[in-house]
Amino acid sequence: MKIVFLGSGNVATHLARALKASGNEIVQVYSRTAENAKLLAAQTGAEPVSVLGAVDPSADLYIFSVKDDALPEVIRQMPQTNGVWVHTAGSIPATLFSSRKEAYGVIYPLQTFSRDRALPMHDVPLFIEGSTPETTLFLKHLAGTLSAHVIPLSGEKRRYLHLAAVFACNFTNHMYTLAADILRREQIPFDVLKPLITETAAKVMTMDPVKAQTGPAVRSDKEVMQRHLALIDEPWEKEIYSLISKSIHNVFTGEQPDEQSPGWSPTRKPD
Amino acid sequence: MKIVFLGSGNVATHLARALKASGNEIVQVYSRTAENAKLLAAQTGAEPVSVLGAVDPSADLYIFSVKDDALPEVIRQMPQTNGVWVHTAGSIPATLFSSRKEAYGVIYPLQTFSRDRALPMHDVPLFIEGSTPETTLFLKHLAGTLSAHVIPLSGEKRRYLHLAAVFACNFTNHMYTLAADILRREQIPFDVLKPLITETAAKVMTMDPVKAQTGPAVRSDKEVMQRHLALIDEPWEKEIYSLISKSIHNVFTGEQPDEQSPGWSPTRKPD
Repeated sequence: MKIVFLGSGNVATHLARALKASGNEIVQVYSRTAENAKLLAAQTGAEPVSVLGAVDPSADLYIFSVKDDALPEVIRQMPQTNGVWVHTAGSIPATLFSSRKEAYGVIYPLQTFSRDRALPMHDVPLFIEGSTPETTLFLKHLAGTLSAHVIPLSGEKRRYLHLAAVFACNFTNHMYTLAADILRREQIPFDVLKPLITETAAKVMTMDPVKAQTGPAVRSDKEVMQRHLALIDEPWEKEIYSLISKSIHNVFTGEQPDEQSPGWSPTRKPD
Repeated sequence: MKIVFLGSGNVATHLARALKASGNEIVQVYSRTAENAKLLAAQTGAEPVSVLGAVDPSADLYIFSVKDDALPEVIRQMPQTNGVWVHTAGSIPATLFSSRKEAYGVIYPLQTFSRDRALPMHDVPLFIEGSTPETTLFLKHLAGTLSAHVIPLSGEKRRYLHLAAVFACNFTNHMYTLAADILRREQIPFDVLKPLITETAAKVMTMDPVKAQTGPAVRSDKEVMQRHLALIDEPWEKEIYSLISKSIHNVFTGEQPDEQSPGWSPTRKPD
């Protein structure tokens, strides 16, 4: 299959490599930044393109993997083509393509991709959606050559999946960042946290995360929490500590967070 | 060695089992709740005790592993003994024992323990502190029979380590809980997140968490973040989403979170 990539970021890089490895031809890689287009094009034997007017209209598939904000403008500037158009974004409906003539859909890989870290696509859940039953079938077949986990999912549900992924991955990683900062200030190596991080993730492979919860907030150990707050200098880090602790407490008691207590400051009342 | 446990929670359970397995004798298990004392005593061949006056004063080591809030009162009610007294708490100074005559210290296992989940103590970092050089040496030797990672650490640094562990483990697990809630409401199985959770943890085994960060907040993808906020019903979950997103943004731009923007509500100004 002849494939054109629009975008050259982390997701584009991992998908392009996997599609190339499974026997497809990456015809072109477009990026607004010529340098980025070249980088991924060189890895996949593709032609780098930095003007949308130069995109080859004869490919079978066009994969749009640019920043969500940039997607509408890239679509607007695209020439008419014969192939199917898909994007890879969790939070954007497939119907963003509906003003154009091409069949369209979504391939949403639920994983955290960093450019320099290899990751077998075979284990990555791929959520697909097509504008017609034929397109869905086409995407199902294609995704099935890459991954053992291909799941048709509506755009409505996909945006909740993306939201859940932000909590489970992006916010989790930020918790690691804040932990690393605390240790760095005390000259304690981050390595000491690694068994804890690994076990915390491993537990929820077999346990409900509610049952896996440990720590001062679930024990309602107020003295420890007060001592911890006293160790944090930055006000927004204190705010994060308070708010997540209250949210943990809330899960275990069914109580609403107490609006009067320090660190809890609702922007609005529940409906 | 003859060992008495004061407390029968998750940490006590895992430590008692490991110490028993490495050839020590667990003489007694104290818990205020007779039922809990019996449960752990039965697993380790110990005598259950629910009154502190009944604690055997002839043991070599007394391990206090009760809720932090309860520790001062348990110490106050303890009979005088010959052995060394240690607690297992990250945020409490060893000097809590200093009003008593016994040599004392701390063995702080940096791990998340759930009662029904087996975990090899050999891989758990044990942070130790003793009231005298001899006590430190004694605890170092004992901890070395349990784990390959024994690290002397002052109480001052230990409380920062505990704080970092709350972020890396307890708060991380709560992110999993919130993600699971979102999926449950949409009838999407939690299983689909497992490869993502595993990879998110695996990445920071070799990458700095700052470099591993992905997602809308680090891309400053405001449209996605606005769409996500619109999907969240609970005000404190919105607050968590906003605050962590701003904190991620802050790490990558070096900016202070904007006090005017919605969802950011400082409790006080930086000093």
